[in-house]
Amino acid sequence: MIIEIISTGTELLLGQILNTNTPYLSQRLNELGFDVLFHSTVGDNRERMAQVFADAMKRADIVITSGGLGPTQGDITKEVSANLLGRPLELHLESQVRIENYFAKRNIMMPESNLRQAMAPLGAIVMDNQRGTAPGIILEHDGKIIIHLPGPPHELQGMFELSVVPYLQQRFPLQGVILSRILHTAGIGESTLEEKIKEFILEQSNPTIALLAGKGEVIIRLTCKGTTEQEAMDTIANLEQKIRQRVGEYIFGVDEDNIEVVLGKILQQKHLTVALAESCTGGLVSSRITDVAGSSNYFTGSIVCYSNQAKKEHLGVPEDVLAVHGAVSEQTAKLLAKGIRSRMFADIGMGITGIAGPGGERPDKPIGTVFIAVEGPNGLQCYKYNFSGQRSEIKLRASQAALDLLRKYALSCK
Amino acid sequence: MIIEIISTGTELLLGQILNTNTPYLSQRLNELGFDVLFHSTVGDNRERMAQVFADAMKRADIVITSGGLGPTQGDITKEVSANLLGRPLELHLESQVRIENYFAKRNIMMPESNLRQAMAPLGAIVMDNQRGTAPGIILEHDGKIIIHLPGPPHELQGMFELSVVPYLQQRFPLQGVILSRILHTAGIGESTLEEKIKEFILEQSNPTIALLAGKGEVIIRLTCKGTTEQEAMDTIANLEQKIRQRVGEYIFGVDEDNIEVVLGKILQQKHLTVALAESCTGGLVSSRITDVAGSSNYFTGSIVCYSNQAKKEHLGVPEDVLAVHGAVSEQTAKLLAKGIRSRMFADIGMGITGIAGPGGERPDKPIGTVFIAVEGPNGLQCYKYNFSGQRSEIKLRASQAALDLLRKYALSCK
Repeated sequence: MIIEIISTGTELLLGQILNTNTPYLSQRLNELGFDVLFHSTVGDNRERMAQVFADAMKRADIVITSGGLGPTQGDITKEVSANLLGRPLELHLESQVRIENYFAKRNIMMPESNLRQAMAPLGAIVMDNQRGTAPGIILEHDGKIIIHLPGPPHELQGMFELSVVPYLQQRFPLQGVILSRILHTAGIGESTLEEKIKEFILEQSNPTIALLAGKGEVIIRLTCKGTTEQEAMDTIANLEQKIRQRVGEYIFGVDEDNIEVVLGKILQQKHLTVALAESCTGGLVSSRITDVAGSSNYFTGSIVCYSNQAKKEHLGVPEDVLAVHGAVSEQTAKLLAKGIRSRMFADIGMGITGIAGPGGERPDKPIGTVFIAVEGPNGLQCYKYNFSGQRSEIKLRASQAALDLLRKYALSCK
Repeated sequence: MIIEIISTGTELLLGQILNTNTPYLSQRLNELGFDVLFHSTVGDNRERMAQVFADAMKRADIVITSGGLGPTQGDITKEVSANLLGRPLELHLESQVRIENYFAKRNIMMPESNLRQAMAPLGAIVMDNQRGTAPGIILEHDGKIIIHLPGPPHELQGMFELSVVPYLQQRFPLQGVILSRILHTAGIGESTLEEKIKEFILEQSNPTIALLAGKGEVIIRLTCKGTTEQEAMDTIANLEQKIRQRVGEYIFGVDEDNIEVVLGKILQQKHLTVALAESCTGGLVSSRITDVAGSSNYFTGSIVCYSNQAKKEHLGVPEDVLAVHGAVSEQTAKLLAKGIRSRMFADIGMGITGIAGPGGERPDKPIGTVFIAVEGPNGLQCYKYNFSGQRSEIKLRASQAALDLLRKYALSCK
């Protein structure tokens, strides 16, 4: 069953609001085993809306629309489909009573215009709206189905779960399920990752593998269709294992995980605490660590040592190291890690120093050069990175690398 | 000129990511005077993508796509349009050199697959990508235009502003102009703000006024259509003045300004430096301050004093103050401000302490209670806030209040 989702509303075409209904419906319909293959958006214009509806009914079996069921003259969705399918609008008495009661209950005079909402195309299945006034509409026509849902997200979601899901499940007894699993990686680029797991990507049609570059990480998404949930889960688990054999060292988490949450779990498990001396990241790594509830259990504190004076006075980096090797150097990073570890009474100390740009470039140290050192029970390590992008991206990428390094270091500790 | 925006990517059809590119492009294109009449989304499937491109080129004059320009086998946008328009893909030498340099600069071996990104349909205008590897494509064909932009939002936005806007403006000189002006506010809620300027909102049809709640701030957007730029500017300036008379004290910046940039300008102008002791914000305020290029001129450093031990040892908060008044108290906030000011050799010191939740609540101090103190040439001030929301929202709102307080304090200094 091919589905197209159509969002209506000129405010969407003006870019004034984010469309959250379409991703909601897409995710839920995929979970239910339907194929959502097209999304469209059209404004509150009769001619163009009719064209978009007609095109959709050609290429999809089920068309689901959102918006345009309100009481104003601009709400035309039902009229357009009534016209298109040659089914006159008629008053739906039950809806009329429900809408009148809705206002009476709230002691508000019902504006005349709200009666428009009680109109439905001939032969429609009318769906109750428990969170607002606009009823929803299901029309079966020439082997195709068109479903109209209201635009406000909480109304749409309520009606979808209460009325549309049971309708679809009864009309199309279980097609199977679609499950997704997300593997989060750090420290590897999209194309290198693809090289390493290319054969799986090419040989698979179910489950499918997709790579997506996000904020400082690349994710691998496995999507599987199965006849039962267990079957889909097993198939995904099997493929996941093969992928982990190839690139497991880069995978730090699954599904909703993010790297700061994963790091927090490891630190708590191992009863380790951390502290950071941040120069070029300016506090970003500490802020991300403390985004996690309960981080006070394993994060003791940080010093953002932006000036050389702060590096000297608060972290004990000697003047001559700064003079000879520079603030952006392996030597300084290591001293920052050592310094913060002892000063913040932490098991693991990390020092980060680099050039976020746009100023500060040197012939041997281009913008994006970052040194990250870590010291703890397993000794002292330091890595040099070359990040690309603008200032804020370099900060973000450096923070991601720092969190991943902390994760690996903590994992290596007993 | 009718425009259709097409988003490509199976992840969108699965509802796994929010589509932010389409609203961005829609908003900007509307500002530039173009009519965006359709949005579509299609997955990474050659046949269906070709169908959607062909349909779009029938009903629109300009088709703009996002996504599918990456190096992987799933990135097929250029191939589909090359096929559709009968224009073979050929190697674009300049892009090849640029991509090779991109990797060379970073001392990374370029994966073979990245060369796919240097291919362009015959006769294409190739657009430089200053934020990534994938070039963009403009194709003029039978009086229609198709433009391919990369999917990552920062790459898409950069290329749109640098290359697409000048191209469109040169190709379609405007009949009039649409100008927007954004006023950024802090310290006032959306509905309170609306109450205060309601009469302007109601009486205006040109310019229009829209209120939008964003990250920790509410913005007022004025949009004006005029026959000349001067006329539109004058109309907006006139309305802006009326709005400032009502709510000027809450407006901290205009257009691209953000509060950290505005603060930076004031500090540089007044030759003032700042330092922070952050507890509940965990380094977020420092990170935001250092997002601004050149912030090393006025930011000396910070201490993220998450533990009580750090508050005592590194900021001189006496044990008995913590015991009697607590870490989250006016007394502690003031001592943090004083302590960091002297320890980081800054003109202005700020102390932030509060309860970000979900743990740590006390009967007299609910989650969201935050004390922010500031000390400098104009003496010591402390404010108590009650922020709502989840942990990350409370951190964000506290950081916004802290930056706004720093801004006002710095402005009050000679």
